[in-house]
Amino acid sequence: MKALRYFGPRDIRCDSMDDPTLQSDRDVIVQMEACSICGSDLHIYHGHGFSTDVGFCVGHEAVGEVVETGRAVQRLKVGDKVMMPAAVGCGACRSCLAGNVIHCEFGAGACYGLSAKLQGVQAEAFRVPAADMNAVKIPEGVSAEQALMMTDALSTAWFGARNADIRPGASVAVIGLGPIGLMAVDSAFVMGAHVVYAIDPVEERRELARQSGAIALSPDEAVDVIREATRGRKVDCVIEAVGLDATVDLALRLVTRRGTVSVIGVQQSRRYAFPLERAFAAGLTFRIGTCSVPEELPALFPLVQSGRLRPERYISHRLPLDAGAEAYRMFEAREAGVIKTVLTRP
Amino acid sequence: MKALRYFGPRDIRCDSMDDPTLQSDRDVIVQMEACSICGSDLHIYHGHGFSTDVGFCVGHEAVGEVVETGRAVQRLKVGDKVMMPAAVGCGACRSCLAGNVIHCEFGAGACYGLSAKLQGVQAEAFRVPAADMNAVKIPEGVSAEQALMMTDALSTAWFGARNADIRPGASVAVIGLGPIGLMAVDSAFVMGAHVVYAIDPVEERRELARQSGAIALSPDEAVDVIREATRGRKVDCVIEAVGLDATVDLALRLVTRRGTVSVIGVQQSRRYAFPLERAFAAGLTFRIGTCSVPEELPALFPLVQSGRLRPERYISHRLPLDAGAEAYRMFEAREAGVIKTVLTRP
Amino acid sequence: MKALRYFGPRDIRCDSMDDPTLQSDRDVIVQMEACSICGSDLHIYHGHGFSTDVGFCVGHEAVGEVVETGRAVQRLKVGDKVMMPAAVGCGACRSCLAGNVIHCEFGAGACYGLSAKLQGVQAEAFRVPAADMNAVKIPEGVSAEQALMMTDALSTAWFGARNADIRPGASVAVIGLGPIGLMAVDSAFVMGAHVVYAIDPVEERRELARQSGAIALSPDEAVDVIREATRGRKVDCVIEAVGLDATVDLALRLVTRRGTVSVIGVQQSRRYAFPLERAFAAGLTFRIGTCSVPEELPALFPLVQSGRLRPERYISHRLPLDAGAEAYRMFEAREAGVIKTVLTRP
Amino acid sequence: MKALRYFGPRDIRCDSMDDPTLQSDRDVIVQMEACSICGSDLHIYHGHGFSTDVGFCVGHEAVGEVVETGRAVQRLKVGDKVMMPAAVGCGACRSCLAGNVIHCEFGAGACYGLSAKLQGVQAEAFRVPAADMNAVKIPEGVSAEQALMMTDALSTAWFGARNADIRPGASVAVIGLGPIGLMAVDSAFVMGAHVVYAIDPVEERRELARQSGAIALSPDEAVDVIREATRGRKVDCVIEAVGLDATVDLALRLVTRRGTVSVIGVQQSRRYAFPLERAFAAGLTFRIGTCSVPEELPALFPLVQSGRLRPERYISHRLPLDAGAEAYRMFEAREAGVIKTVLTRP
Repeated sequence: MKALRYFGPRDIRCDSMDDPTLQSDRDVIVQMEACSICGSDLHIYHGHGFSTDVGFCVGHEAVGEVVETGRAVQRLKVGDKVMMPAAVGCGACRSCLAGNVIHCEFGAGACYGLSAKLQGVQAEAFRVPAADMNAVKIPEGVSAEQALMMTDALSTAWFGARNADIRPGASVAVIGLGPIGLMAVDSAFVMGAHVVYAIDPVEERRELARQSGAIALSPDEAVDVIREATRGRKVDCVIEAVGLDATVDLALRLVTRRGTVSVIGVQQSRRYAFPLERAFAAGLTFRIGTCSVPEELPALFPLVQSGRLRPERYISHRLPLDAGAEAYRMFEAREAGVIKTVLTRP
Repeated sequence: MKALRYFGPRDIRCDSMDDPTLQSDRDVIVQMEACSICGSDLHIYHGHGFSTDVGFCVGHEAVGEVVETGRAVQRLKVGDKVMMPAAVGCGACRSCLAGNVIHCEFGAGACYGLSAKLQGVQAEAFRVPAADMNAVKIPEGVSAEQALMMTDALSTAWFGARNADIRPGASVAVIGLGPIGLMAVDSAFVMGAHVVYAIDPVEERRELARQSGAIALSPDEAVDVIREATRGRKVDCVIEAVGLDATVDLALRLVTRRGTVSVIGVQQSRRYAFPLERAFAAGLTFRIGTCSVPEELPALFPLVQSGRLRPERYISHRLPLDAGAEAYRMFEAREAGVIKTVLTRP
Repeated sequence: MKALRYFGPRDIRCDSMDDPTLQSDRDVIVQMEACSICGSDLHIYHGHGFSTDVGFCVGHEAVGEVVETGRAVQRLKVGDKVMMPAAVGCGACRSCLAGNVIHCEFGAGACYGLSAKLQGVQAEAFRVPAADMNAVKIPEGVSAEQALMMTDALSTAWFGARNADIRPGASVAVIGLGPIGLMAVDSAFVMGAHVVYAIDPVEERRELARQSGAIALSPDEAVDVIREATRGRKVDCVIEAVGLDATVDLALRLVTRRGTVSVIGVQQSRRYAFPLERAFAAGLTFRIGTCSVPEELPALFPLVQSGRLRPERYISHRLPLDAGAEAYRMFEAREAGVIKTVLTRP
Repeated sequence: MKALRYFGPRDIRCDSMDDPTLQSDRDVIVQMEACSICGSDLHIYHGHGFSTDVGFCVGHEAVGEVVETGRAVQRLKVGDKVMMPAAVGCGACRSCLAGNVIHCEFGAGACYGLSAKLQGVQAEAFRVPAADMNAVKIPEGVSAEQALMMTDALSTAWFGARNADIRPGASVAVIGLGPIGLMAVDSAFVMGAHVVYAIDPVEERRELARQSGAIALSPDEAVDVIREATRGRKVDCVIEAVGLDATVDLALRLVTRRGTVSVIGVQQSRRYAFPLERAFAAGLTFRIGTCSVPEELPALFPLVQSGRLRPERYISHRLPLDAGAEAYRMFEAREAGVIKTVLTRP
């Protein structure tokens, strides 16, 4: 089969690969219908992945159809249309049984496409381990592209908004307007925000946020404009969707007394200079982490089915799988207009 | 001055009356700018009020301007534009200080316009007792008519939706589409409902709910349509905004397992035949009561200022105060098109 | 094997019965170590069960050891010490996967020992269907008797206290001091109640509540004493653990404004005369239903392990299984000193 | 009158001072009955206060009797026994009216005894501004010493425990066993903690925590012992009651995935090296700030009245006001046995 494989920094390309096979009777094989590229895939593209492996298949966002099932699989059958939450759990530990796969006691952080250990999903087909846990049937009224957006990006955005303690009537700021930030804007409105300030240096992305009803600002002007608009009060809830010290700093400057900062940008800082004294005076909640997709789906499915959330709006490019090398290049170059790129079965 | 006075069943009319005067140094006098007629005013109109008094001024929903203040008033001054929450508290007991005026320890349920004891607000001017508590300055960006809708109807609708435990993604039904029910539909959407079923026998009211995005149903069809649409699951949250045993019954038939019924329709039943056995099997929450307006305003003000809630949409008629008799007649006759009637200073 | 079988009203006795066998590869067979008699077993004893079957084995509270497992069982093995939550779910539907077995979409209310369809657990051995869901390993530090109390009674008591919205500092009343009511008293204290009024007509049971720190009252004196002690305010939270209209009535008379009534007594009333008018004025929450045991265990296990909850205190009698007929007779006669009776493997 | 006055670093002593007088008709004068020394008083003692004033009266924890009232005071009269929350609000802004005096829009952080602007309460008498807000009548059943402990220390401890998201059944660690930390241990148990690890380098303080039921540990052993006792899981909730980078670090090392760290120790760090990467992986809530005393009292009063919280246990010394210099010296020297020192009217 064909698959996008990592051969070294900035060298991910579509190449032949052995077809996936069942390795346990709890696995299924899924034929990919669509997959997408996530910001975190760029870490691997840049050669900063967690593995020294070469040649493995990348990607962790996909939907498709079950084509083979292990004997112990109970809830899936051949022909089922499924989406794969990005993080993979064992399906049997206390965390997984509670829906919290990212803190699986036996494989915390396990994810497709990080090494040869668990091949990625940017391929014509792929193996899903502990499939009763890790493959979710796409319900009626949810399109394949919508489900694809829920495997990671929309779920993370929604979780980030939940973590920000958004109450109906709240004021919200979102820092970083990639697909996740843009969907965090939409999520904040669904949760009842009366205003959302959307902050990003790129005008094109700010324009998308404006179309969702946000007040769009560049990082340079954000503090001054928000202070003035709120008469110094600042905002109740801030969602940081970038992952840099500077944006965490900005979040802490924008939040009001007794407000909440929710950090969902992937963080690599080990010694961020946190202003404890100021936070103590303001009385803040600082919440940080990423989502377990299965926990978010019960709320997201009906919101997508009813059209209140329309994640497919942020798909900017649709290319065949064998254009994967070009897709990665465009994404990495932040070419104009690239928000979310979907790759389809050739 | 002129005032709408109650002279007997179906005889409320505009007549002369003594100007109001301060009775305590914590009072203020307010010159009415606009007032409105509430469904509960009809109890008095029908002669079922709580008092045998005759000649008193009616009404409890009004906005206006402070024209005189008692010496102990601290937070208001002449010229302030104010709205008056419908229920009146002492402003000093533990309940009032916590914002819960309807359970004021010294005057629970006190309300304008029920008897000669506290004259109503459908008059050119009126007295507001304990005014630091009972008159609220209208913030910038809120119109007089919007504030008027918040004195009672919108606050009650919002409270009813809060009481229904609406979470983002929930399914909701609202029974009864008077102004409060219609604003409960809007409130449910602001709180993140993915669908709202709006139920009323009058097509004209259903059409207003449809314009808000609801699926409108007659009471006859509601159970069947909702069961089918939800595949037997029924809805997470039901708001009852009528006040009859039959509508409470309908609410309990529409709610899903572990769902919540919120009753805000004014109840007069002392022995409603509650289906305990069925409720026990389903595991329900049944919440009932009315709102303390001051508690709802911190969320409502920004939502109205930002246009996410537009209560003024439900004002169907604007008449001068001296057309009050006609306004009551039309309202009581449920004439076509009458939703909310506002009376203005002549 | 020996089992307690129902042969007609007031005729439950220990008799021979075929050994249980696996009926699905998801089942396990458990050898009983201890089982107990629940108040709801008396419905069957009185001939008011849900079935016309005769000869079936009764009982739904048991602990024991796995002695045989179906091939598809993943999380249990022979030799495991297990407790069986009283309600049985399919283990695969959306409700079960969320831990809510009592609203299992395919078998809501399924329970051991109600008919020949699913034999009871008051036997030397019994079959557990969908065992990965319906049998829970007893963790270290929890005794067999403690686990037995958690299969139904303690979990229900804890759930009832949770449903009563008990916040630290709350005042609480518990109506009905059977084992569940007594453990609701203890649960209320663990949740931070500053006072618990414990109400029952039987002095012996009141004495047990006193030993837990409660103020014990007879139903006759409860309203007056509580009104006086609270200066008319009444209590924040009431737990009804009886299941009669009269005790629901008492609960609604004892609860303060904005308080919560939690009904966990099994209800058979279809037309309870609910005082809507009074409840509307007070602004109440009325919550009713029973627990899904697996949802309560994450909080209960550590509280029992640490000794903060000691459910074994309410075991008043320990008899061998073959004294079952006598045990039922004593329990039904409400003989002095009978609180909870445990039957052990002979 | 006599008062404890600050004359320079390590020079606080009892000296004569002008009697306090009303400065606004919203003030009252209180005759001190008892006052106490807080850890934050040491900042002033060390000469690190916020003011260059000399000669001002210190202290912010006191109870006493109203002896004079301004004309606009509505809720207090001469003879009332009152406690003074440590932070002082204007009593009229939106924050104050909501009970949040520490974020008073016109005087955030205002406190007695920091400068000559608002004299302290370690004196025979003192002035209370905006007294309807800033003096609270001591309810029946609460002793003067208990009320004194609630003016700051117990309220802060309780708030810190609330901020830690303690649910019944939770595991908790408290770092720092001064009076606030010790009362945080007690608060955690009232909120339903099944275990509390109490951490301090001083054995004498650990012994007090043990008497409350905690497992007491030195900072050196805490990480290892807790990891082992919880099988690597660590604790759900951590309360930091010291205010150093090292103790915040320890808190972040002790908290489990999805757990909460609550920081109540007064923080002066502007650039604490926060381990964002680790916190992101664990999915943490980090909450920091101090309490507004009036918000905590509705829960605390009944808990103290009923004896579930006994803050007076931590009063180790009772001295007359004119022994104030010695009291400060002992406190600063951390002399054996000194936990909380109360100074009484001579």
